[in-house]
Amino acid sequence: MPDKEQSNEEGFGKYILIDKLKNKYPEAFGDTGSYGAVSGILCLEGIHFNLVYFPLQHLAYKTVINSIADLYCRNVLPLNIIVNIGLSARFKKPDIENLIEGMLLACKRYGLKISSLDISSSLTGLAISIASTGKRTDGFRQVKAEETDLICVTGDLGAAFLGLQLLERERKVFEATGGAQPKLEGFEYVIGRQLKPDIKVNVLEEIKEEGIATGVIRTVRDGLASEIIHISRETGMGCRIYHDRLPIDRDASAAGRELGFEPLIAALNGGDDFEFVFTAPVSEHAKIEKIEKLSIIGHLVPRSEGNSLVLQDGSLAELKAQGWTESPIR
Amino acid sequence: MPDKEQSNEEGFGKYILIDKLKNKYPEAFGDTGSYGAVSGILCLEGIHFNLVYFPLQHLAYKTVINSIADLYCRNVLPLNIIVNIGLSARFKKPDIENLIEGMLLACKRYGLKISSLDISSSLTGLAISIASTGKRTDGFRQVKAEETDLICVTGDLGAAFLGLQLLERERKVFEATGGAQPKLEGFEYVIGRQLKPDIKVNVLEEIKEEGIATGVIRTVRDGLASEIIHISRETGMGCRIYHDRLPIDRDASAAGRELGFEPLIAALNGGDDFEFVFTAPVSEHAKIEKIEKLSIIGHLVPRSEGNSLVLQDGSLAELKAQGWTESPIR
Repeated sequence: MPDKEQSNEEGFGKYILIDKLKNKYPEAFGDTGSYGAVSGILCLEGIHFNLVYFPLQHLAYKTVINSIADLYCRNVLPLNIIVNIGLSARFKKPDIENLIEGMLLACKRYGLKISSLDISSSLTGLAISIASTGKRTDGFRQVKAEETDLICVTGDLGAAFLGLQLLERERKVFEATGGAQPKLEGFEYVIGRQLKPDIKVNVLEEIKEEGIATGVIRTVRDGLASEIIHISRETGMGCRIYHDRLPIDRDASAAGRELGFEPLIAALNGGDDFEFVFTAPVSEHAKIEKIEKLSIIGHLVPRSEGNSLVLQDGSLAELKAQGWTESPIR
Repeated sequence: MPDKEQSNEEGFGKYILIDKLKNKYPEAFGDTGSYGAVSGILCLEGIHFNLVYFPLQHLAYKTVINSIADLYCRNVLPLNIIVNIGLSARFKKPDIENLIEGMLLACKRYGLKISSLDISSSLTGLAISIASTGKRTDGFRQVKAEETDLICVTGDLGAAFLGLQLLERERKVFEATGGAQPKLEGFEYVIGRQLKPDIKVNVLEEIKEEGIATGVIRTVRDGLASEIIHISRETGMGCRIYHDRLPIDRDASAAGRELGFEPLIAALNGGDDFEFVFTAPVSEHAKIEKIEKLSIIGHLVPRSEGNSLVLQDGSLAELKAQGWTESPIR
């Protein structure tokens, strides 16, 4: 049985590792049909969430959001979730009820049902895995990405990460002082983005209704930078994004000042925003501009130019992302 | 962050608990379509497996088997698996490769591809969750269960559990003696059933080809007794099964004698056999008898007669099962 162990560091080069595995075992990987309509996630206590400041209801709600977000990109309307929960003995029946209530909130909001629930023991806290599925819907008007395409993003970025930093700070204060009340007034937006995120389904619907042609569409899961690198790989082109075009909410900027943390970094590398990033032909510019909560943040460039961020002074910085550096797993 | 904690006891009344949750939150549960084509599982180190005697390759292979088995009952040919792995720092790159190699074995045998792989950190050993999906196939010829229906099971029962007991015993000897070699000769079959189980896809195909009408079909996951209770609930009838009709392999009986463990108990309450149990009209008797690796083990009875096991002396014992007793989770 496992003792409490050192976790792998965050951002341990998982994309590099996964690439290597795909190269080494090409016959194991692929899609034999049907895959697109299913998404699966695994959330582990102490790694993906900390129950000190994450109420169980919110956690369960968010885990459902996390599980279904990708389906919208794949033209699937989520309908059912298959839930597996592992619980250690410190969890009691009311805790389990809180989890189900949180899931129920997400189910009501997104029209889902729990089709299957299984509960097992766990040696170490809480583990939740959710598979979600649904029915195929009308798709985005999809075109091949071109070197002149725009890069667009829904909503705003970085707020969820800054909310998490505030919660972390207050936890430390709470522990150091033996119980000082957290000072979170004025930061409701960023904390809400962390604890009860939403999916901008309406914006995606508008993109479809307006008939905006799209190329690659992805959920912003582990920060924008990571998705930009994915887009670069999928299109075989480079990406250029502009610091002053990144949608950063005023409240996120305020939280950044409060924490002494650059909101740009939160937008690039913070997770959990559940926004969507996609490419679109430059001819769609006017249609895109009309849609609220949708921003043009950059454009594709020839591959040779790489992936870069244009800073406010016009200089270029190479875009790097967590998970794309060499793995410490040997 | 979680310390190493007490696990919930095995068989903590999960079915009772899940029933209560379904009653308390009826609007959360259900099936809004598409569900049947997806299955999801979560396997946690120290709870669902012990790496002391479970080689990583076998574990990964078996986790895939575990994930796809139910799909066959639901008339879905599994095609794709979506894999999430959590790993603590004691796992190195060759360990991850072993996991992928084990999955690849299952993929080759059952015609699957890994459509999505994600790897994250874990504080405590290994966690694997797999969602699997596929395409709908020709169904079983399904009829409403009747009070006179037969209860049938594929393959044999209890061997996987007895294999596990042997491995557990050898682990204890190994630890107590500081490294005595395990004595597992002659027990290859039961150990194989634990470490590299197979799904009797061919038997299911034969049932379809012979046009055998079927009622409820379930995978034997946590022992036969548990499934019998599920069948009783689904049909609204009682079940009677016969000790001397239960298919117990000769090698499982030998392992039982070696261990001083009653193979009947292994068949009723041991997990991991991945066999299938189903009901069929009594008129299908002759067709069922013709199929190899398919046994008639009992029949439905009026609900008032309850679920019982007919012992060899003709006396009746009430059938109970793990997971169906009152939960210690308060």
